Amino acid sequence: MGEHTNVSPQAHTLRYIESTLPLPEKSLIARIRRSATKRRGIVSGIGDDCAVLRLPRGHEALITTDFSLEGIHFRRQWHSPESVGHRCLARGLSDIAAMGGEPIAAFLSLALPRKLPQGWVDRFTSGLLKLARSAGLTLAGGDTAESPDRILADIVVLGSVPKGKAILRSRARPGDRIYVSGSLGGSAAALQRLLKDPAEKLGPADFPRHFFPEPRLALGRTLRRLKLASAMIDISDGFSTDLHHICQESGVGAEVAAASIPRATTGKHPQAVDLLTALHGGEDYELLFASRKKLSRRSLAGVPIAEVGRITRSNRITLIENGSKRELKPQGWQHFA
Amino acid sequence: MGEHTNVSPQAHTLRYIESTLPLPEKSLIARIRRSATKRRGIVSGIGDDCAVLRLPRGHEALITTDFSLEGIHFRRQWHSPESVGHRCLARGLSDIAAMGGEPIAAFLSLALPRKLPQGWVDRFTSGLLKLARSAGLTLAGGDTAESPDRILADIVVLGSVPKGKAILRSRARPGDRIYVSGSLGGSAAALQRLLKDPAEKLGPADFPRHFFPEPRLALGRTLRRLKLASAMIDISDGFSTDLHHICQESGVGAEVAAASIPRATTGKHPQAVDLLTALHGGEDYELLFASRKKLSRRSLAGVPIAEVGRITRSNRITLIENGSKRELKPQGWQHFA
Repeated sequence: MGEHTNVSPQAHTLRYIESTLPLPEKSLIARIRRSATKRRGIVSGIGDDCAVLRLPRGHEALITTDFSLEGIHFRRQWHSPESVGHRCLARGLSDIAAMGGEPIAAFLSLALPRKLPQGWVDRFTSGLLKLARSAGLTLAGGDTAESPDRILADIVVLGSVPKGKAILRSRARPGDRIYVSGSLGGSAAALQRLLKDPAEKLGPADFPRHFFPEPRLALGRTLRRLKLASAMIDISDGFSTDLHHICQESGVGAEVAAASIPRATTGKHPQAVDLLTALHGGEDYELLFASRKKLSRRSLAGVPIAEVGRITRSNRITLIENGSKRELKPQGWQHFA
Repeated sequence: MGEHTNVSPQAHTLRYIESTLPLPEKSLIARIRRSATKRRGIVSGIGDDCAVLRLPRGHEALITTDFSLEGIHFRRQWHSPESVGHRCLARGLSDIAAMGGEPIAAFLSLALPRKLPQGWVDRFTSGLLKLARSAGLTLAGGDTAESPDRILADIVVLGSVPKGKAILRSRARPGDRIYVSGSLGGSAAALQRLLKDPAEKLGPADFPRHFFPEPRLALGRTLRRLKLASAMIDISDGFSTDLHHICQESGVGAEVAAASIPRATTGKHPQAVDLLTALHGGEDYELLFASRKKLSRRSLAGVPIAEVGRITRSNRITLIENGSKRELKPQGWQHFA
């Protein structure tokens, strides 16, 4: 993590001033340095041009990067700083889980507006580090910059997986059964409420999959160890879109039974989400996988799993509802709106 | 590289629409996929939740992340799209060079405003991929998102180095000689001109270190192989600030001879930069290193090197100019202005 010489948008003359970092940035780096105490695999973290890391013997590296942009992925009026920090890292960890991998280290690039209160940065960092600790990984570096107006975060997660054992999207075969973990639509249900009434304050406890989604690392690892998944993806864009990703990469189709889709129950007075929300709502960070085997257990690694359909030879995805069939198109809410 | 379900800042109702990517994003991903043809070390790139990479046997991983933010690190009126793409990747490669490492793969997170012309993205990608090819690394993934207004890029570079051989900032010892590669202040000289007259169009050929800086990968690798550098850093923040980083991490001081600082020559009618610009100007992406040995050669790996001072037991950096000594404080232009 290093400060960098910048083209200041406000400065009209080039002044050489003593290089000091503003308090939020200083405190952030100091806090990350303290938290990144020597851990197995981290040879050198913050304080050098690069972090130096060692992978477990016989392992390959997994890398994923994910933006969390204010106004696009979160809003300060809706999401507490802790929730923004947690969700920022959860996006990356969920990608590691979807490969059956183990997280090793995260790198945070954070651009902050000048007027952002110190307290926001502290609480954001707390949310992120709490999830990092529980997932057993280190925040080992990153970059900081000034942002003209909005908070911009980009998280990189490095993980590892035994050589040749990563669970790809491209290995689903006709006849495989399709499973999802947990329940779907819980995150989108929170957004529906917030978009309908932007001033509403939702309780995080009533919508945990939206505010503090738990990446399914133990489940991903278990599926890899037991060789139960032929292809896997995490549900970040929504079930319909992410199933399309698997089908596209594997060159297959699918049949899905509407009645078997596990719908999330959310809210203060718990209520199941509707089918459309479960099928198309994003950011649940559950796992969607294909398996050659019929899994008789209702849960694995402590997480419920439900069989929702079959991989087919077709080039489309069909939804079966009340005995009739229709095409299930990849849908989600608008990106680049 | 995956599209993600987003909180659209414009949408006030939640609409489920067919998930299609806008043309710039689609074309960017397609282009990156084409360029990321199977290379040694890349097991799986774009098209999965994570990229899967293999490190050379007996190597450790190097990771660095760097923002390139419009209005902070570049301006569209000053920097061509090719220059922005080149500089974006050069920042990360220079960090790999400073560890004595070899680059393997880059990951690009790119957030684009909706109205950005397709041509800008194509030319940005060309600039970035051209440097990637010449440095022998693959663009293996990333993330895309909509940006509310400005172009935001974050580059991650993964590299490797033989175990225990990374050149850290923290190993300089009193008595070591201090060297810099190339010449200093060339990048800042361009900025000085642009800040003075923002409408001026500078020729990239007259200010190559600013518009198309070449990361010193071959030099970094040679210094590591020949065991010539005890500590190293790349000059991104400016010589004074980056020498302070080495001194701070190594717990040492330094003495620098002003007359020995190699000053860049820039402009259409070439002229050497002044001492302040050479000492404090940033973004030259030259290497600054300490060595136990006296290097008799004037260049290494095709790059000029100059001895500029000595590491001392003191806790400060002293500048010697015309026989008098004064403290050299870490200076740069304002960050978080």
